[in-house]
This record gives sequence, structure tokens and C-alpha cells, in this order.
Amino acid sequence: MYVIIVYDIKVERVNKVKSFLRQHLFWIQNSVFEGELTNSEYKAVTDGLLNIIEEDEDSVIIYQLMMEESLTRNVLGVEKASVDDVIL
Amino acid sequence: MYVIIVYDIKVERVNKVKSFLRQHLFWIQNSVFEGELTNSEYKAVTDGLLNIIEEDEDSVIIYQLMMEESLTRNVLGVEKASVDDVIL
Repeated sequence: MYVIIVYDIKVERVNKVKSFLRQHLFWIQNSVFEGELTNSEYKAVTDGLLNIIEEDEDSVIIYQLMMEESLTRNVLGVEKASVDDVIL
Repeated sequence: MYVIIVYDIKVERVNKVKSFLRQHLFWIQNSVFEGELTNSEYKAVTDGLLNIIEEDEDSVIIYQLMMEESLTRNVLGVEKASVDDVIL
């Protein structure tokens, strides 16, 4: 599956979340990661995030796409990360 | 079409972007909006954003889904906004 993860994490945990997500996905923009995950990787990512975040203070949204063909991306302004590897 | 907009905007313009997007979409999380747009609304949103942002300093990603049925959302932690109106 293809996932887009956006998060709003308290500053004291944000680097930990970023480092963790970098192991699995591509950094796209401040607080946004994307990439292809298998079902077991998806579980590893959600479990890992739940271990790091404080569920009453932080927020993570995982958008999950079964058919990545149905997604297009339009970037206005600065392209923060190279998305060559993840262009759909 | 269904769109997810994520942005990274310099602090001096961020409220303007937020106010503008609130007119067209649902606020979901810090720096994330979602909603259904017609083609002409999509054009109005992108044109409006381009009028507000500085293209060499700010970044906006618009994910556009032709088939919203292919998208699921999983929220970990705090649900920042009520998503009753936008649950897919």
C-alpha cells in the first residue's frame, strides 16, 4: 500500500518521530512522509509510532491508499524534498 | 475530486493561508486540510494559494484523489479536528 503520514508532535518528541519514519518512508515536507509499505511494515510503523507518541498530546494521520494510481500530487512553491523516488 | 492539502508556510503568512483554506476545505490537523472540490473550486484554491504564498519560501502539497474510495485514514493519538464530515 502507499501511505502519506502527517503529524503534529510536541517538540520534545518530534525528532524521534522523524528519525523513526526516515527508516521506513521518504521525507516530503515538514511533518509529512510518504512511501510504499507492505502490510507488515505498516504494522511496524504504526506500532513504532504508538511507542513514541503521547496519545493525549500528539497527533498522527496515516492516509492509506490501496491504489496509488488514483493519487496525483501538485506542489506549489518550494519542493522541500526531492520526490524523484516517490513521484506517482 | 477529493484533496488533501499539507503546507509549510512562513509564520507571517500562515494565518492568511489557514483563513483562505477554511473557506473551501476542512481543517484536519495543524497544516492539513481536506475536502471535496469541483474542478473550478480546485482552480480557485490553487490560484488563491499562489496569490498568498511566496513560492521561493513556502511549500504547499496538494494531493488529489480521483477516487476517494481508495483512501482510508488511520488517526493515532489526538484527533485534532472533528472529521465527522470528512470521514471516507
